[in-house]
Amino acid sequence: MSAASEPTAPLPQLRDIEAAAGRLAGWAVVTPLLHSPALDERVGARVLIKPETLQRTGSFKFRGAYNKISQLTETDRAAGVVAYSSGNHAQGVAAAAALLGVEATIVMPADAPSIKIDNTRAYGAQVRLYDRATESREAVAAAIADARGATLVRPYDDPDIIAGQGTVGLEIARQAVERGVELDAALVPCGGGGLIAGVATALAALSPRTAVHGVEPEGFDDTARSLAADKRLSADPAARSFCDALLVPTPGELTFEVNRRLLKNGLAVSDEEVAQAIAYAFRTFKLVVEPGGAVALAALLSGRFPARGATIAIVLSGGNVDPQTFAAAIAVPEDG
Amino acid sequence: MSAASEPTAPLPQLRDIEAAAGRLAGWAVVTPLLHSPALDERVGARVLIKPETLQRTGSFKFRGAYNKISQLTETDRAAGVVAYSSGNHAQGVAAAAALLGVEATIVMPADAPSIKIDNTRAYGAQVRLYDRATESREAVAAAIADARGATLVRPYDDPDIIAGQGTVGLEIARQAVERGVELDAALVPCGGGGLIAGVATALAALSPRTAVHGVEPEGFDDTARSLAADKRLSADPAARSFCDALLVPTPGELTFEVNRRLLKNGLAVSDEEVAQAIAYAFRTFKLVVEPGGAVALAALLSGRFPARGATIAIVLSGGNVDPQTFAAAIAVPEDG
Repeated sequence: MSAASEPTAPLPQLRDIEAAAGRLAGWAVVTPLLHSPALDERVGARVLIKPETLQRTGSFKFRGAYNKISQLTETDRAAGVVAYSSGNHAQGVAAAAALLGVEATIVMPADAPSIKIDNTRAYGAQVRLYDRATESREAVAAAIADARGATLVRPYDDPDIIAGQGTVGLEIARQAVERGVELDAALVPCGGGGLIAGVATALAALSPRTAVHGVEPEGFDDTARSLAADKRLSADPAARSFCDALLVPTPGELTFEVNRRLLKNGLAVSDEEVAQAIAYAFRTFKLVVEPGGAVALAALLSGRFPARGATIAIVLSGGNVDPQTFAAAIAVPEDG
Repeated sequence: MSAASEPTAPLPQLRDIEAAAGRLAGWAVVTPLLHSPALDERVGARVLIKPETLQRTGSFKFRGAYNKISQLTETDRAAGVVAYSSGNHAQGVAAAAALLGVEATIVMPADAPSIKIDNTRAYGAQVRLYDRATESREAVAAAIADARGATLVRPYDDPDIIAGQGTVGLEIARQAVERGVELDAALVPCGGGGLIAGVATALAALSPRTAVHGVEPEGFDDTARSLAADKRLSADPAARSFCDALLVPTPGELTFEVNRRLLKNGLAVSDEEVAQAIAYAFRTFKLVVEPGGAVALAALLSGRFPARGATIAIVLSGGNVDPQTFAAAIAVPEDG
């Protein structure tokens, strides 16, 4: 076994995801698996939508955060938690900490969408803004953790976080069985890779014939290129995208160890394709999806993923988008 | 029994709604019953959301239309159907007719939201626009029906339409039982009264302790005033509201016969309260709700319905809203 194959922590297993589901029961929303006849007709496939937009805090991130913080000792809980995040992890940690009576400090970029900063504060967390250009969020968070003895809740490179996000995959597998369908593929948004690592772990165990594909914004397709090269590669530092939830320049260490074993491949979509997907979801599903949450749908609608004849699950990972950004996206004319 | 109590047609019963559910199985979406912890915390109640925004055609109207048209004889199907509608019934009839291979002509006001006119055409229906100021939609539709022998599919005053819409109530009752909750109240948008008549019929049979309240736009609270007076009263002809789906000036004859027996009362909400509800649903549920679809949520959020401590179902009846109208509503600042 090569050094690259040595995980930095035990890889999460189905039993960890099932245990996470037990902790989340009654706290996380079991999001439905939605079906849109109009979408099926458009792409010539059977598509099932997993709208984590409907999750507590408006994204899947609550699942991992609650799974992590609920397992801290009383002593650790008393010292609080700290996290860095562009927004969705921030809200997930803030809400989970509040439910568990734990103080949370969140390090957020000053240019994050204001809805995410406002919501993080509304959940009761302290917010420490930093300048993306001049400060390191990891260093700021580490200093806070050191000063207070607080526990750092990482956004993805943590087996408890991955197991929590994996409950999305557990639900998809169970809901597909309830509907009597077998999934050929699942398309999942990919930033640091925690969500897709968890989903792939659950599906590998429960629906092994389902191919799991990561979807990233163009320019941030580091996981796609890393999967192709079978080693962790970084995004071009000059890359830009409005998919603020997915601007992670390099796959996580632990998440990539999972993803290199379990993912089929990665796809990339343009911002324009993402805006079209947001507009489509507005018009056809009546769902509010944020840019990063819409990349998997964009891969389907743009034809970058060849769907015809297949049964496919699409994860809409979040819906925390500023009104202005959303208004601009839904003003995009229909592409036919 | 007074003359006012003589229904114009047999009142729909639970068995009619169950039969409608059988016809709709596999064609209509069984919309989920959603739960938002954030909303519960805000209003101090347990709230279950029935998002008919996720229904085929973006509103509940598909249910009644399909239930009606699927029962036509082969001869009647061959002669086609005609309907008049500001938009949601138009799309429901157009989509149901297309699925059943029936030609549909829809009489729509020239000033209806363009998304509704475009979608009606996209489902394959012929659209005949009329001028609200100078033409009668009933007369235009009747002329088309007479000329072609087509069947008029009324928007609400028809027992098959009411039974189809009643499947919303059937699903709410069953989904509440699955969750182990007993509903104290259901708040339902009310225009002509078909949806709420069907929902109230289902709940009266399956959940008799649930009080059903109609919600209308201010100025179009004809059902609320008619319930209070126990006779059909009309709205002020000068009234205006942006809730385009609910601008019916007088309760239906048949629907009022149902509603006067089964509804608790009616509530009215202002356009400003509706816009706040649309913005809240955007921010918190990540659902796209049209003005008329948001009135029940507006009654809850505005405090016009006293919810504290209760378990309440809220029907979001539709989501067909133009991007410009939606963008304006979600730009409304949070009311705290």
